[in-house]
Amino acid sequence: MKKKYSLGIPDAEFVRGKVPMTKREIRILTIAGANIRKNDTVLDVGAGTGSLSCEAALQAVDGRVFALERNPEGIELIRRNAEKLGIDNISIIQAEAPDGMEKLPELDAVLIGGSGRRLPEILDRTDSLLKTEGRIILNCVTLQTLNQCLAYMKDHEKYAYDIVQVQINRWEKVGGYDMARAVNPIFIVSCTKLK
Amino acid sequence: MKKKYSLGIPDAEFVRGKVPMTKREIRILTIAGANIRKNDTVLDVGAGTGSLSCEAALQAVDGRVFALERNPEGIELIRRNAEKLGIDNISIIQAEAPDGMEKLPELDAVLIGGSGRRLPEILDRTDSLLKTEGRIILNCVTLQTLNQCLAYMKDHEKYAYDIVQVQINRWEKVGGYDMARAVNPIFIVSCTKLK
Amino acid sequence: MKKKYSLGIPDAEFVRGKVPMTKREIRILTIAGANIRKNDTVLDVGAGTGSLSCEAALQAVDGRVFALERNPEGIELIRRNAEKLGIDNISIIQAEAPDGMEKLPELDAVLIGGSGRRLPEILDRTDSLLKTEGRIILNCVTLQTLNQCLAYMKDHEKYAYDIVQVQINRWEKVGGYDMARAVNPIFIVSCTKLK
Amino acid sequence: MKKKYSLGIPDAEFVRGKVPMTKREIRILTIAGANIRKNDTVLDVGAGTGSLSCEAALQAVDGRVFALERNPEGIELIRRNAEKLGIDNISIIQAEAPDGMEKLPELDAVLIGGSGRRLPEILDRTDSLLKTEGRIILNCVTLQTLNQCLAYMKDHEKYAYDIVQVQINRWEKVGGYDMARAVNPIFIVSCTKLK
Repeated sequence: MKKKYSLGIPDAEFVRGKVPMTKREIRILTIAGANIRKNDTVLDVGAGTGSLSCEAALQAVDGRVFALERNPEGIELIRRNAEKLGIDNISIIQAEAPDGMEKLPELDAVLIGGSGRRLPEILDRTDSLLKTEGRIILNCVTLQTLNQCLAYMKDHEKYAYDIVQVQINRWEKVGGYDMARAVNPIFIVSCTKLK
Repeated sequence: MKKKYSLGIPDAEFVRGKVPMTKREIRILTIAGANIRKNDTVLDVGAGTGSLSCEAALQAVDGRVFALERNPEGIELIRRNAEKLGIDNISIIQAEAPDGMEKLPELDAVLIGGSGRRLPEILDRTDSLLKTEGRIILNCVTLQTLNQCLAYMKDHEKYAYDIVQVQINRWEKVGGYDMARAVNPIFIVSCTKLK
Repeated sequence: MKKKYSLGIPDAEFVRGKVPMTKREIRILTIAGANIRKNDTVLDVGAGTGSLSCEAALQAVDGRVFALERNPEGIELIRRNAEKLGIDNISIIQAEAPDGMEKLPELDAVLIGGSGRRLPEILDRTDSLLKTEGRIILNCVTLQTLNQCLAYMKDHEKYAYDIVQVQINRWEKVGGYDMARAVNPIFIVSCTKLK
Repeated sequence: MKKKYSLGIPDAEFVRGKVPMTKREIRILTIAGANIRKNDTVLDVGAGTGSLSCEAALQAVDGRVFALERNPEGIELIRRNAEKLGIDNISIIQAEAPDGMEKLPELDAVLIGGSGRRLPEILDRTDSLLKTEGRIILNCVTLQTLNQCLAYMKDHEKYAYDIVQVQINRWEKVGGYDMARAVNPIFIVSCTKLK
């Protein structure tokens, strides 16, 4: 099937119900940070609506994306969004990470959006699966997740990390005016497993 | 009556219905820019809930604030908020600016939040009332209002202006986490009538 | 030659002298907005160091990027950066836009970073070259450029536009601390020529 | 001596050498958060150029501000800035906090800008001096300071805290253009000692 988008699928394309969704600009910067190649194997932890999984799958066009999500509503959304966008290289796993990571192959890139309260365990499991020079990209919306991530990377010197905070304002058209509407800011932590 | 606040009344203190309200941090920076003294006469154009009028009235404690608002719901909110906060030096005028400005005295400071589509007229009328070294502080949420304001100030060299954009993120407590919530950004244009 | 990056070349990879450069995150969002396909023909107006041209060239891998720049120092930087990154599908034109646009072929996407004072002329010329469903992406750092762009799009209803403001904070490592350093914000205006 | 400013002294008014200085908008929001009354006793920890001490002294006009600073260059700047602004209710203490806090009286408000690596000790000492309903306002520029502060407040339930991140863009006039220049963002943590 011919794909309409290569990167930066509009938010409105996704079916989402009430599940929170990573906004377009954040998805773009996350995917660019992950530096995904066409044969890569990618894991998306806490996949939610599958919006990041879909973007990753468009990059890893001859590879595979594993979308891990605990919520049945999310599972259904991931399936529907992939189908709607003509994407067939996503494998969905219903589990709460790090559960569900036992049988994964070696990974080139890992995207961590929703992590619940088990981030250190998830990072340990990720580390055991991640290839050298592989990338972990975390999207943090709380200070606690950011701190857990920062603490982990400071304790594991085989990783180089950098932190960027992204704040997007969209200027919406309201009756002839262009009016600012802020998107909630996010911290993107990009980690590389050193040789 | 003893007043509880001197500057920066919490948002939750105001009765607001569905009327948009200037958020606390924006009010603080607006009032600080207006440099209001205790005997000053201040005009608040498009007063909305009266939140800025109330802050101005706390500064101009021996002066007077004129709150101009076209919306009857707003008029009632201004009255209730002033009463709730023990403020008695606000005079409410129900009109759509520049209407309602005919009988005003000389002004030390003018706050312009809501201006509808008549900003150049409002600025002309304001200019005729404003004392030398008086201040006009505009809060702009649309590009169009910002541009009208900028064009006016470029055409009127007796004013010095500066523009600051303010973006506030509040970190809300959600189940043990501190999570970012963005407040929509605002442009604060501060204008001084030169000697 | 094998290319090291697919999107989001690190800032430090570019030779830049004292020429201002579009920062990595802004480049990523600009390129994603342009939706460049591998056979596309792209124009980069005010190419500066060539950082956007290089990113575009990595997308239009079987197409061509025209980099238009008036400054001889910029011309040399574009040449050196393309060479350093193993990019051979950039054609450099030394001229001040809209000069230098006379002999261009039909265009799929146009990136406008530096426009000097002739933006409306540049947009007119661009319009005559741009294919239907083609994209113009403008990066605006001044209110004046933003306004010119907005006015043009409001006058030309064959274009759909949207405006996003991007603010990036990088958290730099300073003596064991992670300290925020703000990147100057930019408005990205994305315009699509409608059918 | 008559004072020219009541709140929000322009940055350019301060003598600062190479010492980092809290920018005007951050000072305004910090001071408004501290809710300083005219008879209050205030401590400014890591006073730097004294810019926050001066603002606090303008509020506590019949009270006193203690400015604690370790750096001799800072001590001299505080002295000069207070003198320049006609402020005579600042007492300067040369020490590295929490040293120098031994002989302080009870405090109504404490401002913590620079804390070095001893923040928990400083907060313990502050707590022993702070009156009930007193306020601690911390300006955090690093994630580490923010985290230390957050951890302390979570461990000490007698404090209510809230966190706001402030990002200011100033639009500078450059050759007829208004161009954005970002101020580095800051976290303002406001803590109240509960009854």
